[in-house]
Amino acid sequence: MTRTLVILSLCTLAGFAGTPATAQQPKKELPLRVVSPEVHADKKVTFRINAPKATEVTVRGDWMTGEEKLTKDEKGVWSVTVGPLAPDFYSYAFTVDGVRTLDAANPTVKQGNNVYSIANMFSLNGPEADFQDNKLVPHGDVRKVWYQSGTLTEQRRMHVYTPPGYDANSDKHPVLYLLHGAGDDDSAWSTIGRAGFILDNLIAAKKAKPMIVVMPSGNLPFPGMGKVDPLLDRFTNDLLKDVVPHVEKQFRVKTGAKDRALAGVSMGGAQTMHVLATDPERFGYVALWSASMFGGDRNPAAFEQQYEAFLRNAGTVNKSVKLLEITVGEEDGILNASKAMSGVFKKHGVKHQLKLTGGSHTWINWRRYLNELAPKLFQ
Amino acid sequence: MTRTLVILSLCTLAGFAGTPATAQQPKKELPLRVVSPEVHADKKVTFRINAPKATEVTVRGDWMTGEEKLTKDEKGVWSVTVGPLAPDFYSYAFTVDGVRTLDAANPTVKQGNNVYSIANMFSLNGPEADFQDNKLVPHGDVRKVWYQSGTLTEQRRMHVYTPPGYDANSDKHPVLYLLHGAGDDDSAWSTIGRAGFILDNLIAAKKAKPMIVVMPSGNLPFPGMGKVDPLLDRFTNDLLKDVVPHVEKQFRVKTGAKDRALAGVSMGGAQTMHVLATDPERFGYVALWSASMFGGDRNPAAFEQQYEAFLRNAGTVNKSVKLLEITVGEEDGILNASKAMSGVFKKHGVKHQLKLTGGSHTWINWRRYLNELAPKLFQ
Repeated sequence: MTRTLVILSLCTLAGFAGTPATAQQPKKELPLRVVSPEVHADKKVTFRINAPKATEVTVRGDWMTGEEKLTKDEKGVWSVTVGPLAPDFYSYAFTVDGVRTLDAANPTVKQGNNVYSIANMFSLNGPEADFQDNKLVPHGDVRKVWYQSGTLTEQRRMHVYTPPGYDANSDKHPVLYLLHGAGDDDSAWSTIGRAGFILDNLIAAKKAKPMIVVMPSGNLPFPGMGKVDPLLDRFTNDLLKDVVPHVEKQFRVKTGAKDRALAGVSMGGAQTMHVLATDPERFGYVALWSASMFGGDRNPAAFEQQYEAFLRNAGTVNKSVKLLEITVGEEDGILNASKAMSGVFKKHGVKHQLKLTGGSHTWINWRRYLNELAPKLFQ
Repeated sequence: MTRTLVILSLCTLAGFAGTPATAQQPKKELPLRVVSPEVHADKKVTFRINAPKATEVTVRGDWMTGEEKLTKDEKGVWSVTVGPLAPDFYSYAFTVDGVRTLDAANPTVKQGNNVYSIANMFSLNGPEADFQDNKLVPHGDVRKVWYQSGTLTEQRRMHVYTPPGYDANSDKHPVLYLLHGAGDDDSAWSTIGRAGFILDNLIAAKKAKPMIVVMPSGNLPFPGMGKVDPLLDRFTNDLLKDVVPHVEKQFRVKTGAKDRALAGVSMGGAQTMHVLATDPERFGYVALWSASMFGGDRNPAAFEQQYEAFLRNAGTVNKSVKLLEITVGEEDGILNASKAMSGVFKKHGVKHQLKLTGGSHTWINWRRYLNELAPKLFQ
């Protein structure tokens, strides 16, 4: 009798059991499925979104400065084909009637510090972009690591890449500290930045030394308009007094300046500059990539005044920093600021390289900057 | 002369430099900022989204089975206040004119295997839910680990939690393998599942032993309708022949059955059952949580037939598995299936516990199941 009831219960479940449900998956509301993005053989890419009630849909991606309008078909599916695009790893998102919207057909999503940096991602494969691919080579791990920041009196998270085989040997490694830009968070260099895969590939090819890459969070509570310097000071103290000591305690690392490097993009470039000026003998390699001057009140006189002590002691940085580079794209809005920064360095005798590349203020450039810097480190 | 030009260049940058730009942050298109979600003192929660052109906006969250409609104000901002809610960690997303849409005001986002499991998250704090909070206790790391699956002939990713102090000592640890449900991916137990924080808190309170938690991906290419068993076999082979050996090679772990546990939710529960039946002596602790029967062609006779060898050898599993639990919520659509599974086990003499809880098929329950299981493991 009990057995019969059990059988009946199971039979009524047949329909349900075939659809492992979650609260996020109400089957009845699944809209028409579309394929998006669709990468064609000719390197054109089609984006689609099912939005029958919408009146305007656009797509914005980091391969272009503006946006593309989609057009609607009779079923309510909007689409546009762009390109051909150069092989690369791209981010994008839709705007549907003014509301930023992820691509429902593409679960590859990057996180961010605000919704305008949360985006879908896709890869258009090709040999000119394979330095950042997930190849059949030994992979390092990327960890989420929590630390207690005495500076910021809060628990904070960083991402840490350990090279392939880290757990199996007892080697000590040099460390690259890698800073993200505004809008992003400490995950960015591991998602859209592809840092782990770039290092895996360089290490497998013996082009770069095995190293630990530490990717802290650059986002701090904003202290108020006109108070830029305290923000930079607080970040710098968190990095030098909390992040670096935590890393050097938890991980097997070499702790001399010649085994420490620091690089940052955009806002992270401004932070890199401030850290360098605060302690020019801590990092043996420093890279300022698309470095924001950070702060609407900045001008060259203010920059020179702010970093007067650093600039006056060019001998110190010239002695301790083996490589100091300023790198920026010719189409980057930061271009002139980077040239100006180089000019101030030159005026004060701070040895450095100004490297101009193609491209603009995007991860397309920053991944390549990492790929070119890493082989030069710790040699 | 050079210096004058540099100064002029910098001056023209003043406006730009105050807005560190990324391709994802076009300032001109930032819509009206709203606060969402807003958690009130009375535990009600207000959701808001700026969508002036929309005609219908709803919110769906894992504290309810249906959805709530939002209403529009004169500025085009839609809002609704729900609750009071029990203190907990919740996921939710909007639907704007039929298109699932993330909350632009809340960057805390969970990943997923499809867009219906990508959702915003928020915490409503309270002592009854603090077992899953990020407390001021020592934290373990959560790593993204890549391995080469011979079974699936692809590179696959898992998340691995190592307990606090893992890098500083040389202890060997027991391992809990923890499987996610359909729609989610290997990140889920570390985001919406809060596994790292739950373990951190239990370990700090000495309620659970330090352990490694391995969270593999349960998503495989679907082999076609009606071919459920090969899918389960392939998952099982990947776990037993690829994941476990990789973990036992890379990490300092104890390798006896009494130091291995396996638990899974929903689809992951069906996978757990299949792994148990395939090798009943591999894991000393097994938990089937909201376990989907997995497959629309299932009925008790088919279940009994599929696992006939396992059920016939109840003595083997009774001897090797110290704890076998079936846990499900009274409002979970899986309730009757779990009761039926328990009935089949009972009929064949497989020792187990059937645990009925409140709640339904959500992470709200699953986090509590983990919190209650972990202290019982490896004792």
